[in-house]
Amino acid sequence: MGKVVALAGGVGAAKLLRGLVKVVPPKNLFIIGNVGDDVELYGLHISPDLDIIMYTLAGIVDEDKGWGIAGDTFNCLEMLGRLGFETWFKLGDKDLAFHITRTKMLREGMTLSQATAKLCRMLGVEVNLIPMSDNPVRTKIQSGNRLLEFQEYFVKRGTMDTVTGVIYEGAEKAKPAPGVIQAIEEAGQVIICPSNPILSIAPILAIKAIKKALEKSKAPVVGISPIVGGKALKGPADKVMASMGFEPSAYGVAKFYGALLKHFIIDETDEGQKNRIERLGIKVTVANIVMRSLEDSIRLAKIVMEVK
Amino acid sequence: MGKVVALAGGVGAAKLLRGLVKVVPPKNLFIIGNVGDDVELYGLHISPDLDIIMYTLAGIVDEDKGWGIAGDTFNCLEMLGRLGFETWFKLGDKDLAFHITRTKMLREGMTLSQATAKLCRMLGVEVNLIPMSDNPVRTKIQSGNRLLEFQEYFVKRGTMDTVTGVIYEGAEKAKPAPGVIQAIEEAGQVIICPSNPILSIAPILAIKAIKKALEKSKAPVVGISPIVGGKALKGPADKVMASMGFEPSAYGVAKFYGALLKHFIIDETDEGQKNRIERLGIKVTVANIVMRSLEDSIRLAKIVMEVK
Repeated sequence: MGKVVALAGGVGAAKLLRGLVKVVPPKNLFIIGNVGDDVELYGLHISPDLDIIMYTLAGIVDEDKGWGIAGDTFNCLEMLGRLGFETWFKLGDKDLAFHITRTKMLREGMTLSQATAKLCRMLGVEVNLIPMSDNPVRTKIQSGNRLLEFQEYFVKRGTMDTVTGVIYEGAEKAKPAPGVIQAIEEAGQVIICPSNPILSIAPILAIKAIKKALEKSKAPVVGISPIVGGKALKGPADKVMASMGFEPSAYGVAKFYGALLKHFIIDETDEGQKNRIERLGIKVTVANIVMRSLEDSIRLAKIVMEVK
Repeated sequence: MGKVVALAGGVGAAKLLRGLVKVVPPKNLFIIGNVGDDVELYGLHISPDLDIIMYTLAGIVDEDKGWGIAGDTFNCLEMLGRLGFETWFKLGDKDLAFHITRTKMLREGMTLSQATAKLCRMLGVEVNLIPMSDNPVRTKIQSGNRLLEFQEYFVKRGTMDTVTGVIYEGAEKAKPAPGVIQAIEEAGQVIICPSNPILSIAPILAIKAIKKALEKSKAPVVGISPIVGGKALKGPADKVMASMGFEPSAYGVAKFYGALLKHFIIDETDEGQKNRIERLGIKVTVANIVMRSLEDSIRLAKIVMEVK
């Protein structure tokens, strides 16, 4: 079996990926992770999207919360609060082990992709999890006259602001991390995970060399809709799509990706949009795409891998 | 009331200091802390002796354990262990808030004394806690042919090695931190806390300018014995004294400090050593010096402050 490349954001992607690793040999799986929402807090480098994937594939994710590590505590954060720091970003104590270790690796001169690979090895995660770039790319949110840092918008203010623009700062100059382009070129299948198109996938596509490689790819590029029945399965994708002028629907997501997409998997709820999407020149598979259990994830992963 | 200067190690010093702050206005108290046992772990700068003093004076210390913060958990450390790191140094989750913050401050260009002052302010600790130096001084333990890092000897190997020599690496070149010499020159009272003479106080005295300033001090330099009835109240002081060729007794400690000491406070148990110590030219006060409660600490602090 050839290489399988997956463009991935956070929670939605992680849910598909936990199924995919049961269907595809992990060594063949190349996950290109969004790092546009990386943030430095308390001097520590935090990569939320890479972490949620790593935690999920290691089996330590807190599935109830949808983020962080199962059974984690927040004692360090509580003490940071006592020292007078803001504590809206909920860093768990177990969680901190990763941020502390990653930060040390980066300070010692490793690249983010090297640090990520090493953390995966330490955790026994066998997939190739590669940040889209080792250069800093930072997603910033425009809301009217205000420009917000991504985590300020996403966590601190709980996505309450109307998104009127998104900037992928640094993307222009950023180079794909080592291995990214090669994986795309050698891929037998490219997957766009059911992540927020504008906030999680677009930062990856904002790196020109990655977009170009995907456009040239002979492998089918297959997407899975993160929107079902007009609602995001998780997070603010529907709101953001709407305020950015896209229809908040499976169709809207397909249109957002446009010619990049060869195939799109939408939920049964949205079967009525099949014809409209196909008129965009995109093949459509209709399936139950809501992943509530590992079995759901495996079932969907199999459907994704059957697309030719 | 004039300035009061206290040379301090860890737990024993902290117990006296929690009494001293009830007797001396905290703003007048200048604590010169040992940083010879500082260590970098997981990329974080840890100052165990400064921390135990800070935690004690902030009222958050774990009094049962004698180190760390009350009610702390060890989830980050556990995860670091899972990632494959050694975890013999018991860093608590609350504890980490200080190490993370200190490390960030140092990386941003603050000196250790600036970072320490800021951490104290954040915690509401009003004394002047000053590391002996902003330059690195590292206490190393010689045991026969082996040279051990301090925390390797102290924590990892649990003081099981026979100490045959001690090196205060960097002390030769280290300058006293800002404020140290001035505090000593302006002091009305200088206290050598009941800390390990060789492992906690000697690193401070190894900085020549500090020793010289103490020798020139017109204020009485008063010590409190860390050894009672031939046993260290805490830690390996007795063992280390013996293996380094000093009598493991109040007398042995007095002799170790020698001419530096004007006055020494020993326990009632050791009253028999009074005359021998006085023959060294050191005045002696006999008291109950075992501090089991805050009241004990206050009582001893009053005795210390009455010495003229």
